[in-house]
Amino acid sequence: MIIHMAEGATSDQVQHVIDRIMRDYGLRCETIVSDTTVIGVKGIAAIVDEGRISELPGVDRVIRITEKFKDASRTFHHEDTVIDVSGVRVGGPHLTVFGGPCAIESEQQALDSARMAREAGVDVLRAFVDKSRTSPYDYRGLELRRGLEIARAMKAETGLPIVSELIDLRHLQAFVDAGVDVIQVGARSAQYSPLLEELSRINVPIILKHGFGNDMSEWLCAAAYIMSGVDREGRATAHGNTSVILCYRGIKSFESETRFSADISMIPLVRTKSHLPLIADPSHSSGDRKLVERVAYGFIAAGAHGIEFDIHSNPAEALCDGKQAVGREAGRIVENMRRIHAMLAGVGMESGATVMAPAK
Amino acid sequence: MIIHMAEGATSDQVQHVIDRIMRDYGLRCETIVSDTTVIGVKGIAAIVDEGRISELPGVDRVIRITEKFKDASRTFHHEDTVIDVSGVRVGGPHLTVFGGPCAIESEQQALDSARMAREAGVDVLRAFVDKSRTSPYDYRGLELRRGLEIARAMKAETGLPIVSELIDLRHLQAFVDAGVDVIQVGARSAQYSPLLEELSRINVPIILKHGFGNDMSEWLCAAAYIMSGVDREGRATAHGNTSVILCYRGIKSFESETRFSADISMIPLVRTKSHLPLIADPSHSSGDRKLVERVAYGFIAAGAHGIEFDIHSNPAEALCDGKQAVGREAGRIVENMRRIHAMLAGVGMESGATVMAPAK
Amino acid sequence: MIIHMAEGATSDQVQHVIDRIMRDYGLRCETIVSDTTVIGVKGIAAIVDEGRISELPGVDRVIRITEKFKDASRTFHHEDTVIDVSGVRVGGPHLTVFGGPCAIESEQQALDSARMAREAGVDVLRAFVDKSRTSPYDYRGLELRRGLEIARAMKAETGLPIVSELIDLRHLQAFVDAGVDVIQVGARSAQYSPLLEELSRINVPIILKHGFGNDMSEWLCAAAYIMSGVDREGRATAHGNTSVILCYRGIKSFESETRFSADISMIPLVRTKSHLPLIADPSHSSGDRKLVERVAYGFIAAGAHGIEFDIHSNPAEALCDGKQAVGREAGRIVENMRRIHAMLAGVGMESGATVMAPAK
Amino acid sequence: MIIHMAEGATSDQVQHVIDRIMRDYGLRCETIVSDTTVIGVKGIAAIVDEGRISELPGVDRVIRITEKFKDASRTFHHEDTVIDVSGVRVGGPHLTVFGGPCAIESEQQALDSARMAREAGVDVLRAFVDKSRTSPYDYRGLELRRGLEIARAMKAETGLPIVSELIDLRHLQAFVDAGVDVIQVGARSAQYSPLLEELSRINVPIILKHGFGNDMSEWLCAAAYIMSGVDREGRATAHGNTSVILCYRGIKSFESETRFSADISMIPLVRTKSHLPLIADPSHSSGDRKLVERVAYGFIAAGAHGIEFDIHSNPAEALCDGKQAVGREAGRIVENMRRIHAMLAGVGMESGATVMAPAK
Repeated sequence: MIIHMAEGATSDQVQHVIDRIMRDYGLRCETIVSDTTVIGVKGIAAIVDEGRISELPGVDRVIRITEKFKDASRTFHHEDTVIDVSGVRVGGPHLTVFGGPCAIESEQQALDSARMAREAGVDVLRAFVDKSRTSPYDYRGLELRRGLEIARAMKAETGLPIVSELIDLRHLQAFVDAGVDVIQVGARSAQYSPLLEELSRINVPIILKHGFGNDMSEWLCAAAYIMSGVDREGRATAHGNTSVILCYRGIKSFESETRFSADISMIPLVRTKSHLPLIADPSHSSGDRKLVERVAYGFIAAGAHGIEFDIHSNPAEALCDGKQAVGREAGRIVENMRRIHAMLAGVGMESGATVMAPAK
Repeated sequence: MIIHMAEGATSDQVQHVIDRIMRDYGLRCETIVSDTTVIGVKGIAAIVDEGRISELPGVDRVIRITEKFKDASRTFHHEDTVIDVSGVRVGGPHLTVFGGPCAIESEQQALDSARMAREAGVDVLRAFVDKSRTSPYDYRGLELRRGLEIARAMKAETGLPIVSELIDLRHLQAFVDAGVDVIQVGARSAQYSPLLEELSRINVPIILKHGFGNDMSEWLCAAAYIMSGVDREGRATAHGNTSVILCYRGIKSFESETRFSADISMIPLVRTKSHLPLIADPSHSSGDRKLVERVAYGFIAAGAHGIEFDIHSNPAEALCDGKQAVGREAGRIVENMRRIHAMLAGVGMESGATVMAPAK
Repeated sequence: MIIHMAEGATSDQVQHVIDRIMRDYGLRCETIVSDTTVIGVKGIAAIVDEGRISELPGVDRVIRITEKFKDASRTFHHEDTVIDVSGVRVGGPHLTVFGGPCAIESEQQALDSARMAREAGVDVLRAFVDKSRTSPYDYRGLELRRGLEIARAMKAETGLPIVSELIDLRHLQAFVDAGVDVIQVGARSAQYSPLLEELSRINVPIILKHGFGNDMSEWLCAAAYIMSGVDREGRATAHGNTSVILCYRGIKSFESETRFSADISMIPLVRTKSHLPLIADPSHSSGDRKLVERVAYGFIAAGAHGIEFDIHSNPAEALCDGKQAVGREAGRIVENMRRIHAMLAGVGMESGATVMAPAK
Repeated sequence: MIIHMAEGATSDQVQHVIDRIMRDYGLRCETIVSDTTVIGVKGIAAIVDEGRISELPGVDRVIRITEKFKDASRTFHHEDTVIDVSGVRVGGPHLTVFGGPCAIESEQQALDSARMAREAGVDVLRAFVDKSRTSPYDYRGLELRRGLEIARAMKAETGLPIVSELIDLRHLQAFVDAGVDVIQVGARSAQYSPLLEELSRINVPIILKHGFGNDMSEWLCAAAYIMSGVDREGRATAHGNTSVILCYRGIKSFESETRFSADISMIPLVRTKSHLPLIADPSHSSGDRKLVERVAYGFIAAGAHGIEFDIHSNPAEALCDGKQAVGREAGRIVENMRRIHAMLAGVGMESGATVMAPAK
């Protein structure tokens, strides 16, 4: 951490900053004095709250060098983390495909979609009981108990692990009891700390999306909430939950032609910054099934560990409407992603050589 | 609602759309046929889920005319809503000032700040027990019970109503029991539907911020969650909570010199679109206390019903650091805001004449 | 300027950076060595090209302290600049109103609008001959010579100075010959350096808008192009043009309800960062004449030195359409802006005390 | 085009809109009358200026169906356009690689980089004489004549066609005389209409970037400026220049970890919307050479017709700094892009079947 003092800051103000950093965090400082003063904090300043330092008299700005999202950062954990989802591996050298219906609407539609997804070659099945909606008038899913019953049936029918989004933290135990293999956190809950704290206390792997208003640092700090198990009073609880899979989906921008702006540079960047597995969601980023296939290929070629995408059960309707193409093409998409992944295995990330190292 | 069919859509597809809108919503349609077909839905289509219509075969796009955020919309409620906060009126012709410390850190700091805020002339006191933070390592507030005790003491000391942010929905009863007069929903919870649904079942007024990734429509839909009392199955519960005060704070943009981009045009626009009281937060939008005063004046001149801002208890420290100026200037800021508000009362919103009408 | 070296940077790499800064810019450095090395550049580093430094081997990042936009920065010019526009003063303690038709469409419409603008009390008249358009099929203005004739007639008719936007740099002489009192640079030309360089060689005051994709630093760097008169080879020409008036209009964001997001915090911020006069454009920022009046009041209350807005000549049409309200209300808007400005003269910018100092 | 009339619009206002569309554009309308009136314009409304219609009394909003960027739109030109750049083909089934130094700094550096680029397998060589810069103090390139001499030498040395960015429109003839094979338009000139108009009058192919504040429609409208040859008065000149290659580079967003946000969905989307060849720039979008390789693979897998990227001449320096990796890896990157392109030829764009059709 580097602290730049304002023009005209007094030597007392400089000393005050140095004393506070020693007192609160046990870290020593050194200075460069010119027209203004630069204070360099020596040692790892990951948990220093720069907001509190920047409030001190005479401080112009605080420049953070060590990332705040310590638990999720590759700086402190050099090798790729590989996560086991009921026998399916995610991260490191593996390519993992998550797919299935956007939401469970009925038993028939859910089981049809599940079979189609298994035939297409997905590794983990989407079985979404709740649907987070912007408007209270829109469809928010079946009744919880009924939805979880169908999710269980989808798992039994296909033999695949299932992923389901948890919105209401009071439903966590019901999800665990129903045998959900991966719990997903969606955009609208992505910074809701009470939910993240609950997830830090269980042993089920998590897929963590980011809010469409969050930058990379906020996203990885949300991962740190789940991983650290630090509670409100700053105490680490017995354990955190380190099985976090990041899922990128893009952010809001002024471009309205696509649903979100899924910055392709974020894929290799997040791979460099974090040791966690990184998947991406071509369905929700593009918002248009005509674009999904090529966007999926782009994500994999850029270095994603996998994809989560929507597969629909109604190929008849798909035949007369281009929008439903992903029903028909799911198998081809999975196959081509595997070919791209195999072709580029280990290529092009040498500058962060440890990035591609298999986890121990 | 207008539906534009894609080039090449069949007459069967057109009929299918018309039939679905009749079947699901009981609304009739009419068409204009040219190179492509335009379908006009007759009547109020506020609760039609355009997502479900746009999925139908042959549909190119759906254009919503009636806003989705029905309960919050001025279309369905022409006159300004005025909300009573323990005797303080918010909205309509009133100017209301919410102020106090950003967070309760200790009894001494909280009571000092409370007295300073009362002297400055605020109407409702900030008494924030919880602090939502991006990083799990940052300060998240005192222990809940202790924090609420101090909040109660602030209220007793000043005789002012208090506002406090509720993050964990499981703490709602404790907030109500502690006599919190207004419950605030913050950016990170602004689309967390289980919390919004809980707030629809109480009688305490709400201040609703928007997420920094939310647009106007998403914000007003969040208000509709609280106001409608519609539950997951689409049933209206016994009552919703119509006492919602909107608080604007700006959104993220590519400009990094200010914390958020607080679009001044949103103030008169939201006044036109919604009948709810609208306040703004100059402290969190600008992120720099040097800017707060003039930003506050800007919001009031643009038509806001009030301001919520941070007042700090340490004038001594403020004297040696320009950042703390709001401590010293709070009284002057409140006074000037009242002068601007009085000078412009009722001016410049004629084109939406009902906007300024006093509530019944 | 502070340079942070990457983990593992060698002492040779550190020395290489220090040597380059001495060789290219004659500035000395000092270091703090810890896990990584921090290099502090001593002295004013405004013109150092941080891009070239950040390319050097071993450099992690370069942190600029002194703003790049030297000529426009208050750091190097403490007092407000006041600009004389043919007798009308802009900046410092003055409030200046620029107004008139968005574009000249015919002699009749132009002269009618001009008279209406003079009666409303504007100080400088908009007389826009060219119109920059996104699409080649949209109206781009009358033929140049005819347009300038009408502009001249508007000036003669009202006795007011005129402002006109210059798009094609090859028309500069024609503008000067026609007696244009202020030349405006629009959003689409705001970073077109050949035009900015031409404007640095004349004596006519400039109103400089920013591109809707530009941040504050890019905007003030464009001002520095005009003010510095530095040519392509880095040589200062005989003189630059220091008479630059900044005009804020907002940027693109994901909010689509308003045309641009005009961040109100930018008004007091730019006042602090630059000594140049700062006006704002409520017509083009909000994109909706129903919002213009209150947005104008917001800008002035926040500290703007004036407003440039569109006034229309067709009150009959305006009577039957709320959109044309600014025709009718122009006089009231100007009057209320003057009242707000007078009421707040010198208030609330103490923390940057020099900001409000009258220019010598 | 669909026009929605405001609530309370009179039948005279409706008729006035219908009359104006007939009078100005010769197009007929039909209406649907309900609580409000919907007007459907019959026929192709590409060149209707919706801004003029939306100003008419009683109009609520205008919904454009036919894209404005007519010349660039696939709606009016179904098959892929293939452009010949001095024997190198761009677009359709071809993959084309543009590469070389970011700017010419000296003869030695330029020729070394040129040879390296040829060995890496690029098809067209970057030979950039001018450099557009945000700050007037930054390096803006060698003196024009000297720069063009070196560009000519790079072409002679390698036998490859060259691409060079034209900033100052007064230099166009010098570029043509120097044998520049493709003229590039950069971000800061991307909406500067006098330059676009000049380029519509020559026969040299153009690479058109978009401004970092432009959306897709503005970008394709800029292409339409070059292609249409429509002048200021709306008259088509003898010919336009239809040889336009689009180059995507991403836009500004609130994410600051990458230079621009390069939305991967834009690649297949622009392929669908326009018949023009589409390449992408992984160097300037990511802003970090550690990310370039994987971003390049992502663009190609998503459907880009090629890449333009920076190749540096100093492999020695690159060896001691990860940032310079593109020097060393250029050959491998080109090779892998060709493998990805071959593997996915024609896959996944069926829903827009004409997209992949070879040009005649």
